[in-house]
Amino acid sequence: MKNQTLMDQLVEAFRCLPGVGPKSAQRMMLYLLERDREGGKRLAEVLARAMADIGNCSSCRNLSESELCDICSDAGRDPGVLCVVENPADVLAIEHSGGYRGYYFVLMGTLSPIDGRGPEEIGVEQLVARCQEAVSEVILAVSSSVEGEATAHYIAEALTPLDLNLSRIAQGIPMGGELEYVDGITLTNAIEGRKSLR
Amino acid sequence: MKNQTLMDQLVEAFRCLPGVGPKSAQRMMLYLLERDREGGKRLAEVLARAMADIGNCSSCRNLSESELCDICSDAGRDPGVLCVVENPADVLAIEHSGGYRGYYFVLMGTLSPIDGRGPEEIGVEQLVARCQEAVSEVILAVSSSVEGEATAHYIAEALTPLDLNLSRIAQGIPMGGELEYVDGITLTNAIEGRKSLR
Repeated sequence: MKNQTLMDQLVEAFRCLPGVGPKSAQRMMLYLLERDREGGKRLAEVLARAMADIGNCSSCRNLSESELCDICSDAGRDPGVLCVVENPADVLAIEHSGGYRGYYFVLMGTLSPIDGRGPEEIGVEQLVARCQEAVSEVILAVSSSVEGEATAHYIAEALTPLDLNLSRIAQGIPMGGELEYVDGITLTNAIEGRKSLR
Repeated sequence: MKNQTLMDQLVEAFRCLPGVGPKSAQRMMLYLLERDREGGKRLAEVLARAMADIGNCSSCRNLSESELCDICSDAGRDPGVLCVVENPADVLAIEHSGGYRGYYFVLMGTLSPIDGRGPEEIGVEQLVARCQEAVSEVILAVSSSVEGEATAHYIAEALTPLDLNLSRIAQGIPMGGELEYVDGITLTNAIEGRKSLR
């Protein structure tokens, strides 16, 4: 059998990226080789550094290249509020929305016994310890899937002994969502969670 | 101003890939960091090697990590036939179709004075020299765009002094193409290039 050429290896290596199939991988390989070697070199260098140097923040468990992430080391935030999310993408989304100024705790997944993720994997013990610092309010911002519900329920139980204001982000119709296209469960949640106007 | 974090740098570096916008770049970054560090390390390593080591074949100008590419160093091909294509992707497409057993010459672009690509950039001189080796037939497999037509015409002129069988790949309706959906120019070409059945 013939040895794999470097070009074949590169196409195969690109396929580890999400959403990249054989055709896109080949296009990426040819594009970088023909038109953007500098970009390719830079990507290789930054990628190698990121894979080696990025770990998890010791306080919030989010991805971070330093012991304490940028958010946890930002003293200008409200120390009393902690938002619990499933993964780093959620932190980016909430930060991007710009409406939140407290700290975070990242579970890095949901409870899922079938995948071997129990309370230890999502750091419940660390979360309880974190909540004993200066936190007075905890917002559970987990997704509203079955695993998300189970995770929210488990965390709520674990935090019961502490004297905390515990809430869950609102479930209802999204901005711009037209009632006729919203699914039944969302509508039921929206009606149950109705807010008084006065 | 704050320094860019390693994660921001990685997102930016991914954007050099074709078809990757800010959202996909962020998804790639998080996916590799959370789930596939090994794949990411391997990609970084292969990419760095490819950017540094892959050059052009001295005979056919195609991308190659060795002095002579795999196809040019394959002695089992027909030395009399040379197929002229625009870029490495065309070689892969023709090889994949499996119907061709001659050698190639890769122009690495078309004639395009506006982009500063003249006969020298597409290697016409080298092609003429290559055709004097053992070649008896040259197939021009350039695309049927305006630049492709101009390039084919220029190459045909340059090869006139040599005693060669010169052809251009057929233009007509594609396999499975229904007449009513085929554009007018293609139809005109198909009718002009009709083949006798006996």
